Amino acid sequence: MGSSERVYTACLIIIGNEILSGRTKDQNLAFIGVRLNERGIRLREVRVIPDVMETIVETVNESRPKFDYVFTTGGIGPTHDDITADSIARAFGVENTLNDEAYQLLLGHYGSREKINDARIRMAHTPAGAQLIHNPVSLAPGFQMENVFVMAGVPRIMQVMFDGLGDRLVGGTPLKSRAIDARLPEGVIAKGLGEVQARFAAVDIGSYPYFRDGRSGCTLVLRGADETLLDQAAEEVRALVRSAGGDPSDEVVSS
Amino acid sequence: MGSSERVYTACLIIIGNEILSGRTKDQNLAFIGVRLNERGIRLREVRVIPDVMETIVETVNESRPKFDYVFTTGGIGPTHDDITADSIARAFGVENTLNDEAYQLLLGHYGSREKINDARIRMAHTPAGAQLIHNPVSLAPGFQMENVFVMAGVPRIMQVMFDGLGDRLVGGTPLKSRAIDARLPEGVIAKGLGEVQARFAAVDIGSYPYFRDGRSGCTLVLRGADETLLDQAAEEVRALVRSAGGDPSDEVVSS
Repeated sequence: MGSSERVYTACLIIIGNEILSGRTKDQNLAFIGVRLNERGIRLREVRVIPDVMETIVETVNESRPKFDYVFTTGGIGPTHDDITADSIARAFGVENTLNDEAYQLLLGHYGSREKINDARIRMAHTPAGAQLIHNPVSLAPGFQMENVFVMAGVPRIMQVMFDGLGDRLVGGTPLKSRAIDARLPEGVIAKGLGEVQARFAAVDIGSYPYFRDGRSGCTLVLRGADETLLDQAAEEVRALVRSAGGDPSDEVVSS
Repeated sequence: MGSSERVYTACLIIIGNEILSGRTKDQNLAFIGVRLNERGIRLREVRVIPDVMETIVETVNESRPKFDYVFTTGGIGPTHDDITADSIARAFGVENTLNDEAYQLLLGHYGSREKINDARIRMAHTPAGAQLIHNPVSLAPGFQMENVFVMAGVPRIMQVMFDGLGDRLVGGTPLKSRAIDARLPEGVIAKGLGEVQARFAAVDIGSYPYFRDGRSGCTLVLRGADETLLDQAAEEVRALVRSAGGDPSDEVVSS
């Protein structure tokens, strides 16, 4: 990767009291993190916030000038606590209005306006000027306002929405990675690892400790766009682990 | 809960490139969310940020005046990418110095200074004035600076650190909850649910849709401090689900 290459960045805003309460475990962060990386976009921040309009408006407006892409998940259904569309409209200073394309989708499904109840009609509302994000799983669409992509919170629906974005997302060179399970405590190799990091400025080396079966170990993950440099650095890390009495094993990672 | 009762709030800052990349799934948010609720403290925001000092400093300094408690996880080990202690020191405008209590813990474990390598000595450094958070699982302690609690990222270690905080955390009345699986799409009950919500201002009703086996359903979660009101509202929600042709089943939830 040339140092002058444009780096594309993203922020994910997870909207949902159920995540903050610990009741529901978020599954969207990991999916979006991996997929963005495949498209050469770096997920730089995630914020989990409650279903409170002022907080949503403020968080979205703080984020959209700071990142190339802002994704939100959650709060686009038909119930009283689904306030994401209203909040995004307010963040952009526009009305949340009936979106004709979304309305036609509902009409096609239910047959006539009489059969669509008022709660479901809310799901056909988007901030004025929004472009829909289609939802082939269930009916309610997401939508895009400028660089803000508003998606469902249900993982399976969010995933098809994200995967349908196609060339609406433009990225750079994806980062590649190598992962090595050192099966040694970090402290044993920390100094040498810092030295390898100092020799490979274009490779980002992370050490992720774990504690299993009463023993400390760590996984060493190397990331970068240049696979030749990555392989060189990984070989130095493996040699370091061996010199400390360890038996490095490569982990298979998707990104 | 009287409306005048003090509400205690918290923010969690998850520090770690490995979470943002999607490689590692965070397990700390759900644990901390549940435990804080048990102590009558509301987790109001979670931010996941990279191992970048400027970002850590900025995020911590934005958060500590806004919440009663700020928790961080990650980045307190011995490797070059463990920069949380340095960052917290900078956020508070103090030095990251050798903490005598932490040093004695290391000495006790390794026997003499000669046997502690320089990387491990880093784990005995805290911002000047910090109070340790003990780690009975492995050696490296966390620490507290004013309302900021700095903990390990490894879930098992973070959990014993958190559970050891005792009366260093003061909270209010814990929220109780009732969860009802409606086994109906949200759209069928959305209007009635909004009406129940309008009648019970002291109960917070959330609808969390799911998509399983090709069918849409939703779990309705009611939260509040007053269990009598909660039970009344829950009974109205069950009646609503039945009137829509559903068969509500209670879910067992911990909080």
